[in-house]
Amino acid sequence: MKRRIPYRTFLKPEQLPKCWYNIKADMKELPPPLINPATMRPVSLDELSSIFADELARQELNCTDRFIEIPNDILEYYETYRPSPLIRAYNLERRLQTPARIYYKFEGGNTSGSHKLNSAVAQAYYAKRQGLSSLTTETGAGQWGTALAMACAHFNLPLTVYMVKISALQKPHRKAVIESFGGKVIPSPSTTTAVGRKILSADPNSGGSLGCAISEAVETAANTPNCRYVLGSVLDQVLLHQSVIGLEAKAAMDSLDEYPDIIIGCAGGGSNLGGLICAYMGDKLNKRAHPHFIAVEPDSCPSLTRGQYAYDFCDAGRITPLARMYTLGSGFVPSGIHAGGLRYHGMSPIISKLYHDGHIDEARAVSQTSVFDAAMEFSTAEGILPAPESAHAIKVAIDEAKKCRESGERRVILFNLTGTGYFDMSAYIQYHAKEMTNHSPSDEELCAGLKSLPKLS
Amino acid sequence: MKRRIPYRTFLKPEQLPKCWYNIKADMKELPPPLINPATMRPVSLDELSSIFADELARQELNCTDRFIEIPNDILEYYETYRPSPLIRAYNLERRLQTPARIYYKFEGGNTSGSHKLNSAVAQAYYAKRQGLSSLTTETGAGQWGTALAMACAHFNLPLTVYMVKISALQKPHRKAVIESFGGKVIPSPSTTTAVGRKILSADPNSGGSLGCAISEAVETAANTPNCRYVLGSVLDQVLLHQSVIGLEAKAAMDSLDEYPDIIIGCAGGGSNLGGLICAYMGDKLNKRAHPHFIAVEPDSCPSLTRGQYAYDFCDAGRITPLARMYTLGSGFVPSGIHAGGLRYHGMSPIISKLYHDGHIDEARAVSQTSVFDAAMEFSTAEGILPAPESAHAIKVAIDEAKKCRESGERRVILFNLTGTGYFDMSAYIQYHAKEMTNHSPSDEELCAGLKSLPKLS
Repeated sequence: MKRRIPYRTFLKPEQLPKCWYNIKADMKELPPPLINPATMRPVSLDELSSIFADELARQELNCTDRFIEIPNDILEYYETYRPSPLIRAYNLERRLQTPARIYYKFEGGNTSGSHKLNSAVAQAYYAKRQGLSSLTTETGAGQWGTALAMACAHFNLPLTVYMVKISALQKPHRKAVIESFGGKVIPSPSTTTAVGRKILSADPNSGGSLGCAISEAVETAANTPNCRYVLGSVLDQVLLHQSVIGLEAKAAMDSLDEYPDIIIGCAGGGSNLGGLICAYMGDKLNKRAHPHFIAVEPDSCPSLTRGQYAYDFCDAGRITPLARMYTLGSGFVPSGIHAGGLRYHGMSPIISKLYHDGHIDEARAVSQTSVFDAAMEFSTAEGILPAPESAHAIKVAIDEAKKCRESGERRVILFNLTGTGYFDMSAYIQYHAKEMTNHSPSDEELCAGLKSLPKLS
Repeated sequence: MKRRIPYRTFLKPEQLPKCWYNIKADMKELPPPLINPATMRPVSLDELSSIFADELARQELNCTDRFIEIPNDILEYYETYRPSPLIRAYNLERRLQTPARIYYKFEGGNTSGSHKLNSAVAQAYYAKRQGLSSLTTETGAGQWGTALAMACAHFNLPLTVYMVKISALQKPHRKAVIESFGGKVIPSPSTTTAVGRKILSADPNSGGSLGCAISEAVETAANTPNCRYVLGSVLDQVLLHQSVIGLEAKAAMDSLDEYPDIIIGCAGGGSNLGGLICAYMGDKLNKRAHPHFIAVEPDSCPSLTRGQYAYDFCDAGRITPLARMYTLGSGFVPSGIHAGGLRYHGMSPIISKLYHDGHIDEARAVSQTSVFDAAMEFSTAEGILPAPESAHAIKVAIDEAKKCRESGERRVILFNLTGTGYFDMSAYIQYHAKEMTNHSPSDEELCAGLKSLPKLS
């Protein structure tokens, strides 16, 4: 019991971040700006403010302020579930017989079940402060919808969630959690929007997609007085809010006198990866340290490893601004893997730029069954059942720890355990029944997706 | 943000309990002993050791040692998820506009989703240390089965879980979690035991009951070499292990210079209630303080409020020792409420004795819909979705806080939030659809149950 480093490290209240960290202030080359497809010019603050709450639009465009103060009301909410623990994976290390020291930041200990709450509460707060009457959003796997429903319940703000229809049908319990927190769930495609009606008239049995749900949520926000749309990933503002993960992780590691050699995060839209790595990326950009960053994506949706770095729409309905990012094309339809949070054609522009410029060292695409193998190894050792998304990071952390077993290196590995898998048990049932499959898209499938990229003059 | 008392209080490692607290050492009158129904004499250590691991049998009969040292391996496991936070319910207080100060100990932050893990790890440890080859148990709602599967995975000990068949069918996801941690789940009644076969021959479509599952688990343990049975509630040893809840709660409250006026726990078999109140009950028995204790039970299964204080079997199959306890009769079949963990005909002998002698001041029976009303008020305020069992304590905590609003008293309320409701969403769906019903048994139904009480010479 007399370990120098405890199993769980919680920061003291006075060590908690009081500001978010804006990585863009430390990037010598900034990500190319969002483009308005109507004018083909960079999106202005006014234009963005018609989609997002004013302060969030300002944050989206802010490239200069390194630290942005977290408002008191948000700090108070963070206090209800933060700091999240930094965990030393002693039991996993023992099982792997590795000399590596493995740490993970566990963001799944709140009822939303993931890190998504960090940005949800910020976005709901700014919307409320501006006097908005309601919000809309989309959700796929449901973690973001749950987080935003919790935040809107706290600030007493009505919320409509367009939930990918196939998810709403397959996950009635996840839908019920969102409804328990007062969120109004509309399976998408729906008859409430022009986009939805168009899709339904073409295919009345459509199960929907994340891209379609985004389009419906944006359309509804635009057509509802005093309403705005909010998004749980991809955007710079989301990475800003998620920076609390990395700031806390670094403060906790510092207190243990540890510095990671390898930092690993799963990558869907980029919210948790960007949140985890930001503080350490600041060290790297300023040449204070050189940790090795690894982004992990599903081989069924390989935007970083097989996509193009190009301007693309953020949604399938092609009504959002254009972002320059690693993308498979907004027309790419990933196979139905269980890690719904990673089934996105694009990638955060900040993450994309950091990867393009070599600051994120590596991206790895891993297969679904290998991810669930890793999830089982982890959960039986560490006693936490991970979300399929999070298990992508676990997979690579275990791979790296095994390499250390071979080489004898005592490397320090840090990854983000973004969430829990309590609402993903149908995936685990399929895995235990050995009915889980893998699908890596063929070159032809990738080409078809990339053909949907907009032609820029 | 400059609150004197933080939202969440975590004990420092050096403040954690190193011993369990055995309340029996402070009881002037002990609970009457367990009786062997074959001899009608108090159960001996040898007899108990044929059912339970040796050290657990010793703990069951230990009435003299006030503190029992927690072995290092158990402390190390506790370290992976303890201390649990003591939470000041600021948001609930604000919503209720009460001058009361409400605290809750949150035991649901581990993957098993409840306090059950505290005893599961202890029982698995002692079984492993003794060199046992396997364990059996039963589970109803599934929290105990999950907790024991996690503990057995940690100590590499095979486990068979008899799961009430209707639960296994209604909760395939809960079953999958148990299986993910390596537990073998057998829906009960089954053809693997004589008891099960007898029940199935009488009713091939039987959905089973907790009492039947207990009987099957005990029978299998008895017929399997080097195997023992373990139980997640009712027993003195379980209350001993669960004392970490109350010891931690009291240490945390002490550090805040707070002392509860009212202490509330839900009561099924008594494991969480006994665990929560023990440290404060020690104060009361030794006349150091006089907090008001309230046990909350479902009005559909009202063992304390409408049962008899009598010797009864712990199982429906009538093969366990007899315990003197508040009971509705082992033949009583409670209605199908969603708080499966509270659907038990009996009550911990320690809790029963403390209630009988007036040390537990009050028992209240509450209706299912009022419990879910309280769960919704709590979850939207505090951001934690409670298990239906836990929501019984919430219901009475809210009632007491509302009384303070009327009287203006600034009373300090402490309750135990035993677990989360992530696997109880079908109950919430029913509640939201306004299809949830209440059933308080008629006097005739109660009489029928009490007729099953054994006739003692």
